Amino acid sequence: MDAVDFTTGFDLPEAGRNMHALMSRLYPIARSITGAGIRETFSILGETLPLTVHRVATGTPAFDWTVPPEWNLRAAWIEGPDGRRVADAAATSLAVVGYSTPVDARMPLAELLPHLHTLPDHPDWIPYRTSYYRETWGFCLPHRVLESLPEGEYHVRIDATLAEGHLDYAECVVGDADDVVLVSTHACHPALCNDNLSGVVVAEALARALAGRTLRHRYVFVFIPTIIGSLVWLSRNPAITGRVRHGLVLACLGDPGAFTYKRSRRGRALVDRAAEHVLGELGGSVEDFVPYGYDERNYCSPGFNLPVGALSRTPHGRFPEYHTSADSLEFVRPEQLAGSLDACLRIVEVLENDRRYVNLNPHGEPRLGKRGLYSVTGGLRPDQRDEYAMFWVLNFSDGAHSLLDIAERSGIPFRIVARAASRLAAAGLLAPGEAGA
Amino acid sequence: MDAVDFTTGFDLPEAGRNMHALMSRLYPIARSITGAGIRETFSILGETLPLTVHRVATGTPAFDWTVPPEWNLRAAWIEGPDGRRVADAAATSLAVVGYSTPVDARMPLAELLPHLHTLPDHPDWIPYRTSYYRETWGFCLPHRVLESLPEGEYHVRIDATLAEGHLDYAECVVGDADDVVLVSTHACHPALCNDNLSGVVVAEALARALAGRTLRHRYVFVFIPTIIGSLVWLSRNPAITGRVRHGLVLACLGDPGAFTYKRSRRGRALVDRAAEHVLGELGGSVEDFVPYGYDERNYCSPGFNLPVGALSRTPHGRFPEYHTSADSLEFVRPEQLAGSLDACLRIVEVLENDRRYVNLNPHGEPRLGKRGLYSVTGGLRPDQRDEYAMFWVLNFSDGAHSLLDIAERSGIPFRIVARAASRLAAAGLLAPGEAGA
Amino acid sequence: MDAVDFTTGFDLPEAGRNMHALMSRLYPIARSITGAGIRETFSILGETLPLTVHRVATGTPAFDWTVPPEWNLRAAWIEGPDGRRVADAAATSLAVVGYSTPVDARMPLAELLPHLHTLPDHPDWIPYRTSYYRETWGFCLPHRVLESLPEGEYHVRIDATLAEGHLDYAECVVGDADDVVLVSTHACHPALCNDNLSGVVVAEALARALAGRTLRHRYVFVFIPTIIGSLVWLSRNPAITGRVRHGLVLACLGDPGAFTYKRSRRGRALVDRAAEHVLGELGGSVEDFVPYGYDERNYCSPGFNLPVGALSRTPHGRFPEYHTSADSLEFVRPEQLAGSLDACLRIVEVLENDRRYVNLNPHGEPRLGKRGLYSVTGGLRPDQRDEYAMFWVLNFSDGAHSLLDIAERSGIPFRIVARAASRLAAAGLLAPGEAGA
Repeated sequence: MDAVDFTTGFDLPEAGRNMHALMSRLYPIARSITGAGIRETFSILGETLPLTVHRVATGTPAFDWTVPPEWNLRAAWIEGPDGRRVADAAATSLAVVGYSTPVDARMPLAELLPHLHTLPDHPDWIPYRTSYYRETWGFCLPHRVLESLPEGEYHVRIDATLAEGHLDYAECVVGDADDVVLVSTHACHPALCNDNLSGVVVAEALARALAGRTLRHRYVFVFIPTIIGSLVWLSRNPAITGRVRHGLVLACLGDPGAFTYKRSRRGRALVDRAAEHVLGELGGSVEDFVPYGYDERNYCSPGFNLPVGALSRTPHGRFPEYHTSADSLEFVRPEQLAGSLDACLRIVEVLENDRRYVNLNPHGEPRLGKRGLYSVTGGLRPDQRDEYAMFWVLNFSDGAHSLLDIAERSGIPFRIVARAASRLAAAGLLAPGEAGA
Repeated sequence: MDAVDFTTGFDLPEAGRNMHALMSRLYPIARSITGAGIRETFSILGETLPLTVHRVATGTPAFDWTVPPEWNLRAAWIEGPDGRRVADAAATSLAVVGYSTPVDARMPLAELLPHLHTLPDHPDWIPYRTSYYRETWGFCLPHRVLESLPEGEYHVRIDATLAEGHLDYAECVVGDADDVVLVSTHACHPALCNDNLSGVVVAEALARALAGRTLRHRYVFVFIPTIIGSLVWLSRNPAITGRVRHGLVLACLGDPGAFTYKRSRRGRALVDRAAEHVLGELGGSVEDFVPYGYDERNYCSPGFNLPVGALSRTPHGRFPEYHTSADSLEFVRPEQLAGSLDACLRIVEVLENDRRYVNLNPHGEPRLGKRGLYSVTGGLRPDQRDEYAMFWVLNFSDGAHSLLDIAERSGIPFRIVARAASRLAAAGLLAPGEAGA
Repeated sequence: MDAVDFTTGFDLPEAGRNMHALMSRLYPIARSITGAGIRETFSILGETLPLTVHRVATGTPAFDWTVPPEWNLRAAWIEGPDGRRVADAAATSLAVVGYSTPVDARMPLAELLPHLHTLPDHPDWIPYRTSYYRETWGFCLPHRVLESLPEGEYHVRIDATLAEGHLDYAECVVGDADDVVLVSTHACHPALCNDNLSGVVVAEALARALAGRTLRHRYVFVFIPTIIGSLVWLSRNPAITGRVRHGLVLACLGDPGAFTYKRSRRGRALVDRAAEHVLGELGGSVEDFVPYGYDERNYCSPGFNLPVGALSRTPHGRFPEYHTSADSLEFVRPEQLAGSLDACLRIVEVLENDRRYVNLNPHGEPRLGKRGLYSVTGGLRPDQRDEYAMFWVLNFSDGAHSLLDIAERSGIPFRIVARAASRLAAAGLLAPGEAGA
């Protein structure tokens, strides 16, 4: 019965504070899909997780793609006619367009303007822009600053290298079972908290919460640069890929919105049903798979078709702070991160505990009273759902229905159904059967 | 065509009055799950039905259960300090807690109070209480009476025996076909009309309405003490159980509410579809199976999984009079009983008449006019549904669709569809095929 | 890619004007299910279509039916007491009840009245009446005229023959593939535009629009007298019938209402899904098959069960002008006919282009940018659905999903999905597989 419950005794509020503190450390690092920033990020994650960092050389093929050159930024700024810096990557890593080519030039405002990106509708916010596959350079700044720029000569400097190097990704494995649960999160975005430091810190906390437990699955956490990272991981891990039974892409898990689960391409995989059941309890909505978004687009490509869904609060692109400086440490709150970790743990709880049982007294209802399974006299009245759950488990433990089937059909939370099954098994009324599909 | 219709020419209002009259005779009898009360009940039912009463000795096993001791009550009362009786089973059988142990004692009010049961929210009503499997004693009375009890010495007397004896149940079989329709109703409740003298009298009237007809099924009516009764019946009738093709548990059929049908565990058994179709006509709602309630919980236990649903008006526990003295002869009305019998007969009508036909002119529509199947000239215009029903039956009588399939798909009542089929068969356009699933 | 789109470059407004002009020529002809009127109609259709007219002798069997006698009308009128004609088929072919027997008699008003049909609720409209299978005669006239008829002697004259002859129907075949698309429309109604000159002229325009194209299917257009015509056609074309893969009955396509598609008896045939998808774009509703209506009742009879649905705007009987003189050349507008032709062409477009593709880079998403499949820099931004459609097609081109499957699942119009597939195939990312089911 203890094995059933993954959150009792777990201090979620403290975990929330820890996640936010970790995010605050990661926030200032200038990350991109390659380079020193993502390596420094993995170095910090390695302090608490048994992390293996993999380096893949520029030009290495990954299916239809190849690993791009490595980009490293030393400095990037614009000095105005008066010598003051109007944009500076030292102040925020959002200031420079990701993968900008080097530049050191003086130019009039009119020549500079096409390289400046702003958000006229949110004049105090700085947008996030990249140009991975088209060589150019640019800066991002508040629209208010842009509007105040005087005519005159500007000094533009981007001290960056775009050269042969490596793409880095990190793995953390918890458990050693044959069946794999893949947890994937992109770790390449710079100073953006919901998208996707929230995914990084929830994955970190989840890995730590599972460490040391007896688990039915091996949990493989991958921290990757988005899109190219999942392609690289998939191309290098055919054996593990074939053993992925369930998976989750974690992203945008720190905002105040309700949960959104995006189904795997399969639609009714166990992880899809587990997430839908948990969100039925915690609140949130479930959406069908669409072939774009984060790395699930690759995990769910037809050559793999892995049972990998995506858990978010407000999905990418649907909150105004998305890909702007307003996606900040204030936007993401510890309680929201804690709630997201709770949802992950509850989904894992289903994956770990779902199984079929066989009713050993299938002819009519067994007498629960003589086995002490009713608590009708004295003491505290148990949750009435505990009693109903026993009837449901007895009636549907016919070899065909798993605990999740029963939870779905009865509308009783999986945890209560699983607890009822444990009690009935302990009383000799049920024999354990196969694990859930 | 005459075979189709089970209610034309049947005097439902008179049947309603007869059912209520029978209920009035059964009402005063002090019934419990064993003992003289239920035997007297069966004796009265035996006046109109060919009833076989089965006696099963205390201690006989029934799967995980055993037949309990027999309880017989001779008298039960409480005399107040002034010698007046404040509760007396002679006035109402609800006054004593069912299966109370014998007692003959004098005690102060404070000692008596824990044995008294009332309904503070309905101070004039007497609750119904039992204690089958825990030895204790008690009385039930109006809360208003309880509140008026003075201090002083009370004389408590329960003259009852709880001893080796028998459990009784009764069977009435109509028809001698191999395929069985099980109609089950509990007959163990004392002075409670909706739950469940209504079920008893509707079953009695249904058995009489079917007697003498040519039937495709054997109808086995069982009158049982609830829960233990169905277990005992199932344990003693493995051969019949294997031939149960359809079944209904009848309960709470006399209140003014709309019908509620609870599906069998199978969910789409023919009886489920028949009941859903009939309630579509008569009004009412259909609910999925849940593994608690009345005896369907045993018939639908996974070791049997019989196609047995439950027909009620307002289900148990959802009307305030439930298990109180307000569930009286006034609460249950003859018209409501008659309507319930009508619903039962219509469900039976589907079970008896559902079959597949084969269209003998399947290429294009046959000419109905030249066969006199249209009545467009002169006379009364028939129900337009009669005409539509002919088209539906012709088009879907392809060997795959039964009349109920066609009724469901067309939205035309089964009776009209079956009548159309009879007319088309008489005109040589259809050949009868297999009986419905 | 050009093959995909059946309406680009097609001048729908001009087609609408042509259809209305053709309808205006056909309107005055006195048509019935047999006789000179329907032959003259086919003669006009033969001016623009390669039409084969089939003549079937009176008395020829067609399954359960036989070809009726041929009816020809030379004149039909009623002269009032003052010698003025109060109804005259020379003015409108609706004036005489179709298949009226000859009469030449003088009679008082009271004797005449039972033979007069009017619409009291629409006193200025003339109803449309026939009596194919019961020998009688009658006239139709505005209720206002009826009310003004004075007492006196009336001269009634119907100069008609009802005699051995023929039933005529016409066929036009476009394409020579083995798989047949049946397009059926009844052409027997007199001066009634929506029901069903609209079906006739839309079918004519569709046949011309398809002529000369490379087609996957052979399109067999049949112009028939309703009900008996489809039976005759089916009875004489068993070989073609066996090759009908899809079909449409066209009727009531000129009124201002939204589209209504009535599913084939199969319900989910490709034509049903194609029509439902197209109506999802163009607006309109989809209804389940019912075994009455137009000729689909015969095509979908159980002995054939052809995948033939029916496309209308407002279905027969649901617009007040139905079967009255108000179903006129003014009620049906060129734009509405053009919109109906557009719907037909789009359904055909799905039937012609639906196929499965196989993604040749199924492991992860291929790089679209390097193949010029993104158009993100400069120029006009394409419809974002073009990009999404590429992702959908790539992800679901796994051999199991056809383009229509993908269009249904994605909610993106078939045309855009098919265009994306063409572009991806041209870029070497997809290999064409089987045609849609």
